[in-house]
Amino acid sequence: MRRAAVLVAGSMGTALASLLADNEYDVTVWTRKEEQAEQMNRERKNRKYTGDFGLSERITATASMETALTGATAVIFAAPSHATREVARLARPFLDSDAIVIHATKGFEPETMKRMTKVLAEELTQIDPGRLVVMSGPCHAEELIQRSPTTVVVAADQLEAAQRAQDVLISPYFRVYTNPDVTGVELGGALKNIIALGAGLSDGLGFGDNAKAALLTRGLAEIARLGVALGGNALTFAGLAGVGDLVVTCTSKHSRNWRAGYMLGQGKPLQEVLETMGMVVEGVKTTKATYSLSQQHEVSMPITEQLHEVLFASVEPQIAVGRLMGRLRTHEIEDIALESAEKWTL
Amino acid sequence: MRRAAVLVAGSMGTALASLLADNEYDVTVWTRKEEQAEQMNRERKNRKYTGDFGLSERITATASMETALTGATAVIFAAPSHATREVARLARPFLDSDAIVIHATKGFEPETMKRMTKVLAEELTQIDPGRLVVMSGPCHAEELIQRSPTTVVVAADQLEAAQRAQDVLISPYFRVYTNPDVTGVELGGALKNIIALGAGLSDGLGFGDNAKAALLTRGLAEIARLGVALGGNALTFAGLAGVGDLVVTCTSKHSRNWRAGYMLGQGKPLQEVLETMGMVVEGVKTTKATYSLSQQHEVSMPITEQLHEVLFASVEPQIAVGRLMGRLRTHEIEDIALESAEKWTL
Repeated sequence: MRRAAVLVAGSMGTALASLLADNEYDVTVWTRKEEQAEQMNRERKNRKYTGDFGLSERITATASMETALTGATAVIFAAPSHATREVARLARPFLDSDAIVIHATKGFEPETMKRMTKVLAEELTQIDPGRLVVMSGPCHAEELIQRSPTTVVVAADQLEAAQRAQDVLISPYFRVYTNPDVTGVELGGALKNIIALGAGLSDGLGFGDNAKAALLTRGLAEIARLGVALGGNALTFAGLAGVGDLVVTCTSKHSRNWRAGYMLGQGKPLQEVLETMGMVVEGVKTTKATYSLSQQHEVSMPITEQLHEVLFASVEPQIAVGRLMGRLRTHEIEDIALESAEKWTL
Repeated sequence: MRRAAVLVAGSMGTALASLLADNEYDVTVWTRKEEQAEQMNRERKNRKYTGDFGLSERITATASMETALTGATAVIFAAPSHATREVARLARPFLDSDAIVIHATKGFEPETMKRMTKVLAEELTQIDPGRLVVMSGPCHAEELIQRSPTTVVVAADQLEAAQRAQDVLISPYFRVYTNPDVTGVELGGALKNIIALGAGLSDGLGFGDNAKAALLTRGLAEIARLGVALGGNALTFAGLAGVGDLVVTCTSKHSRNWRAGYMLGQGKPLQEVLETMGMVVEGVKTTKATYSLSQQHEVSMPITEQLHEVLFASVEPQIAVGRLMGRLRTHEIEDIALESAEKWTL
């Protein structure tokens, strides 16, 4: 009998719990809310997050962290980025130091802009930081729960930890690749929200597929540049945690960031957009922080810069796009290929 | 007075002629068909290819290659890949050896699987092959004609030629980057059709965005692998001619390759699909040729291989997908990042 724990019981947590149940784990899903745990155990559904989807018999919900973690050899953190530190703090006393710890959270800690493995390393002091695993890639929980074919990447500093995560997660409908670049994989998942915001803006302005594809590609190039400056590998951004996640986010109308951008593109002021959304639009905060990082590391990020202008300096979206298109640096080189530009001996 | 020529008068040719007219070129558009040239000059519209779109006064259509090319300092080839050699043969006697020659054709020559700059170099013997320019990227003609923001890449062996092409094409709504990797840029435009076919297949099977994003990303990785084996630069595939074009093709329902894949996914036999489409589905031919190339160069291309099985060995699409997902090589590394995998000292 193999035991796994998933913290917390949102839609991604429920989808991953389901995957682990299919992989013959007995899974305990932890939620802070007693009544949610009771509702889940009583109805065998997680009403609020996954509606009518029926939970496997192998899944139990609990509000006791001790119950959730006792005997668990695989522990998945699937809390929102702002809650991960607190959940980790609650988990620390009960977490076996040999357990494989995987997180599936995209985004930075809001106040500190720290990556999730940093947050986990600071809180879960009994775990070797090199064994902390991030899982990322194009993975809508709504589709994973339907067992629709899904592919992700897992990264850890230590190969053995990434491979253990792979063994835990892989299934006939869930394909898992390993990648050694923890920094790049985590940055991809966080920074793509900026580009999703921009894609929404482009659609809201009534531009076409040419414009959106350009924004995606050039946006990818600039987040890769920043990623490299922060220690990531450029090629990671061409993989599942980069292109893959970007495509699924920018072409899905379910993305909050896309929707916020769309409303901005249609001329609604930021304050109104944030009020309408009634929840956190992560891309807004990420744009602010990333703009600062780009200044600090002297990385050129024209798309992020113009989004920053639209969000925080009341620049009209039309004007921002005009600036992006019309800079008229006629002899600009496609800089994602700068390595090979040496061929021209510039 | 600057003069440009566009060969031939399809939708992309007309869109590029329009762009050049906006850039204050007098443009002659060549078509083999007298009646099409007359209709265009009479009605100031290219009825068959761009419907009600009104042609600029600066645009003249002609069926005389001599008229088209005399005095033209910029010449754009925008013929289908199967017709480019013949159009080039007709152009050769009248083409000024100092003219900048740009082609915007995606795909290989069908019989020889040669890239378009190879075909042009063989036919346009008066032009230094290092000065032949390819233009590629996410560029639907229908959107370009509306002056919707569009971004492309131009590549040539000689920097000066790419920069001249950039000068000719750039406009406030048309952003042009240079890239020295002619091979990669041309391969991206041709090989993406395989992935578009696969994306259609995935949608036709009723899979979700997770599956399609995975297919796009892993498809990109394998065409990049082949591209590198054939002399291209891996990073070009992360740029406009790779990711950019792939995104616009795979998410557009106007793509013939996507539609063919979709019908196959719904269970229609290949013969019926090809008959229904009533025209060439380039991805089918490209899949066959690319599969041979992958064997010849010993490049692993699992998606292309399974598509080949579906198209030419009557394998059920469901089974092909099962093979792709379920290979269960549990410790597979995301190989687009192989360079950094050395960190793990494999």
